[in-house]
Amino acid sequence: MQMDKFTDYALRILIILAVRDPERLSTSAIAKIYDLSDNHLSKVASELVRLGFVSSVRGRAGGLTLAMPAKDISVGAVVRAIKADAPVVECFGTNKSCRILPACGLRTPMQEAQEAFFAALDPYSLQDVSQAKSSLAELLAP
Amino acid sequence: MQMDKFTDYALRILIILAVRDPERLSTSAIAKIYDLSDNHLSKVASELVRLGFVSSVRGRAGGLTLAMPAKDISVGAVVRAIKADAPVVECFGTNKSCRILPACGLRTPMQEAQEAFFAALDPYSLQDVSQAKSSLAELLAP
Repeated sequence: MQMDKFTDYALRILIILAVRDPERLSTSAIAKIYDLSDNHLSKVASELVRLGFVSSVRGRAGGLTLAMPAKDISVGAVVRAIKADAPVVECFGTNKSCRILPACGLRTPMQEAQEAFFAALDPYSLQDVSQAKSSLAELLAP
Repeated sequence: MQMDKFTDYALRILIILAVRDPERLSTSAIAKIYDLSDNHLSKVASELVRLGFVSSVRGRAGGLTLAMPAKDISVGAVVRAIKADAPVVECFGTNKSCRILPACGLRTPMQEAQEAFFAALDPYSLQDVSQAKSSLAELLAP
């Protein structure tokens, strides 16, 4: 069981935006700081904008900011919102190639396990996980 | 959050062994039935043998069987035992490249979420998830 890269990157973007708040950051600046692919990070950032967690302003002074206070963004909500792109098991997504799907007894347990995973993250806000703000700011210095 | 392929394949192997029990099945037969890569499945099967969930007999009449009754194999225990190969987040494994690791507040929540995921699977045995034995046997016919 793994956090997929998409969710991982989404959380990294949200953390840097929380730490630097209210500064606007470009995706390429964030990609550079984390040493991640700009292209992949852009897709994740667009999804965070679409989901309403991040605001994007175009133009020279543009960039990304949190769309709401960090204390109002639940880590569970973020991970839940993104999960559609990466179902916990193949057969929860669009790829339904597993031969035993019609009779497999793992679907209910997996659904319960996934829900337990999200529920454990629900009580944590983005503010909670970015609490070490000054250490994080130092680590995230360009 | 996703079940990694390694764990997915491990569960598929265990299910077919439970359904066909006490028949011995070769990895290549299992790979053929599920239409999966023989090479990848062999690695997963070896790991299941190493972990004590599966027994392997060499030779012409050889093959894999469950190492214990299906009712005594907990799905949670299997997923837990395999997790070392696929940490929930990168930084729980050997790849510790994430820049914010020393101050990241996500580690405790992620650990709790991972544990909640496993705990939700603990009550289910391999027998529980292979209950639809005759339907499964039909779907898994060579």
